[in-house]
Parts: sequence; C-alpha cells; structure tokens
Amino acid sequence: MNRPRILLATNNAGKVRELVVLLAGTPFAVATPSDEGIALDVEETGDTFEENAVLKARAFAQASGLLSIADDSGLEVDALDGEPGVRSARYAGPDATDEDRVRYLLGKLEDVEWKRRGARFRSVVALAYPDGEVRLFEGACEGMVAFEPQGDKGFGYDPIFYIPALGRHMAELEMEEKNRMSHRGQAVRRAVEFLGSAEALELYGGAETGSRQE
Amino acid sequence: MNRPRILLATNNAGKVRELVVLLAGTPFAVATPSDEGIALDVEETGDTFEENAVLKARAFAQASGLLSIADDSGLEVDALDGEPGVRSARYAGPDATDEDRVRYLLGKLEDVEWKRRGARFRSVVALAYPDGEVRLFEGACEGMVAFEPQGDKGFGYDPIFYIPALGRHMAELEMEEKNRMSHRGQAVRRAVEFLGSAEALELYGGAETGSRQE
Repeated sequence: MNRPRILLATNNAGKVRELVVLLAGTPFAVATPSDEGIALDVEETGDTFEENAVLKARAFAQASGLLSIADDSGLEVDALDGEPGVRSARYAGPDATDEDRVRYLLGKLEDVEWKRRGARFRSVVALAYPDGEVRLFEGACEGMVAFEPQGDKGFGYDPIFYIPALGRHMAELEMEEKNRMSHRGQAVRRAVEFLGSAEALELYGGAETGSRQE
Repeated sequence: MNRPRILLATNNAGKVRELVVLLAGTPFAVATPSDEGIALDVEETGDTFEENAVLKARAFAQASGLLSIADDSGLEVDALDGEPGVRSARYAGPDATDEDRVRYLLGKLEDVEWKRRGARFRSVVALAYPDGEVRLFEGACEGMVAFEPQGDKGFGYDPIFYIPALGRHMAELEMEEKNRMSHRGQAVRRAVEFLGSAEALELYGGAETGSRQE
C-alpha cells in the first residue's frame, strides 16, 4: 500500500527544509512542488496570515490533486504596531534578500531601546484538501529584535530575533532546536496531530479518490 | 452543607492576596492561618522549590487538619546560574525587605548587558492532605531582569522583572493580569483543576473525616 502524500505548498527553500523535518515520522510521504512538476507562484493578497495560508494551500491542492500544507508567517514588532506582520517577506521591497530585510528592519528600530523591542514570530498553517476543505493551525514564539544580526542558520528575520529564555538568536539554533520552539514548529505539530485523527483520515480518503483511481 | 475548606499555607501577605483571588470561584472556602489561629513558621530547608512547598503544605495540614496549599517560588537568573532560585526570599539576608532584595540583585547584575539578563519566575504548588498525601503542580514565567525597578504592584522581585511580550514590569500588572500569566497563577490553576477531579474529591473525603466527625 502506498503511503498517503502531502504536498508542501511553498517555494521557499528554508520552509521546505523545516517542513520536511517536521513531517518526518508522520504516515505521510512529503512531496515538493518540483517533485510534482508544479510551478505556481501564489500572490499573497490576504490581509492576515490566515487568508494567505489558505490562498497558498488551496492553490497547490487544486493544481496537484493532493492534500497540501502551507505556512504563512511573519514577525510582529510591538514598537511598529505589529509591522511587518503579513508584509514580512516584502517589507523591504519585492526583490529584497533576507539580508536587505534584516538591515531595513534594524534601521526602522535604530532609536528604539531594548525594552521596547518586544516581538513575536507568528505562523498559521493551512491544510487544504483538493475538494476545498481547509483546516487552520497556529503557533507563536515570543522574543525581541536584537541590535545586530547573529547566527547563520534558519532564514528570514532569524538572525535578529533574540530569545531571552535561551540567551540566543533564532539563527543560532540548530534546526531541531528551532523546530521544537518556533512558531512554525508549533503550528505544524498541531497540524500533524490533526492529520493523525479520524476526521483527517476520512477527509483524506475523500481527497485521494477524487484525484486518482487506484 | 458546608463548603470544603482549604488552608493557605503561607504567612506572606502578597501570596495570600493572590491565592485568595486564584481560589475564588472554586468550590473551596479559603482559610488563612490567622483565621484558624495557627502561628507556624516553617523553616525552608529544602534544596528545591518542590521540597520547600511540600514542607510548608504538610506542616500546615498537620497543624490544622485541613487540606493545605503552599507555594514555593523564586527567580532564576541565567547570568547567575539560576540564582537566587530557592534562596530568593533570603538572598539579601534574613531581615531584608523586598526593596533590599531588589537592590541587592540589581547590584549583582550591574555590569550585565540586557541580552544576558534572561530570567524566569518558577513556582511549585503543593497540596497536602492531613493524612500525608501530597500533589505537586508547576508554573513558570519567562522574562528579564530590568536595570531599574518599575511599578508598585505585586511583591518580591516583581518591580525588576520585565516581560518583553507585554512591554511591562511584573509590578506594573494589575493582580488579575499578573495571575493570568504568572508562574504562581499557572501552578495554582493546575492545582485547582486537580481539586475538581474525582481523585481529589476522594482524597478530600478521606482527609475531612480524618480531621473532624460530623
């Protein structure tokens, strides 16, 4: 019997790496868009993490006929009233690199003292079935925006996200450690828990027979 | 029918205030040592929060014949390898006031930069029945040691405990807000949950008939 498959609804290499590890050990075989020959660039037009996660998961599920998992996540900085939030990826312009984004955000916070640098990473994970069913899961990770980047692991704003409880920047954590406590790790674990439930298996049966005949 | 009673196994006025609020809305009538005419000063000789919480809860349960609840808690500062920890109350000497303790700790951390000031409040709550049965519950609250005290609520190290996620010092929180997220709030809520369980009611029946005949 084939293992049921789940498609990673993302083109972000950093997210692919983390999701592959987070979904290892589940009954699902993980497929990436390139595995499936799917080239899809979903415009993230939503005003919330929830909307964008659903947009991405639905688009990939429809294109592939597979159960698909998408993450929409971002950094909410208290001193910037929750910015960049859903705009985290495009905060420094459409062609910015991670390094550009980090430098841009540090510039915005130049005159902000350490006590006002509270921030959190938030993640919303959407599971979409080809028939249109969607389930959402959330995670959050509290920290502070440091004054300088540190660490070369992870991606995005990880180098300037400082976690006081660990005394380290997110980008200094090994992936296993990051996944244990990160926003995305939490949200995906909740999704994985759901995927093991009777409700999920029932939905999966429906989805799978909808997309291929065996 | 009388409400079952629970004795607060503490002489600390700040803890009494918080515990009364945390135990309101439970089926238990809260009694303080002075209500019961009990003058008991338990020596906290344990090496851990757990040991000290058990010492206190057991001593009050034996003296009163009532189910008793004790909290042992303290501040663990990463830069001081977890100190003051169980020694939080007597860190600045036996006759120190809260103000003395705060000043003493700030002195120890004078040269420590903000990123190395991570700390957590930990609480262990013990429920002790007069027959010797004990149950333990834990809570923790992550934060940082600020450079200056701020706020006049709470007690102990609250004025210098800064919570980045809230952008405020513990001593700036109203009691309801503190109880929602504090170490002691978490531990007591877990104890209250247990008190509503079948196991707890059974233990209580045994305890109550052991202490008085009705």
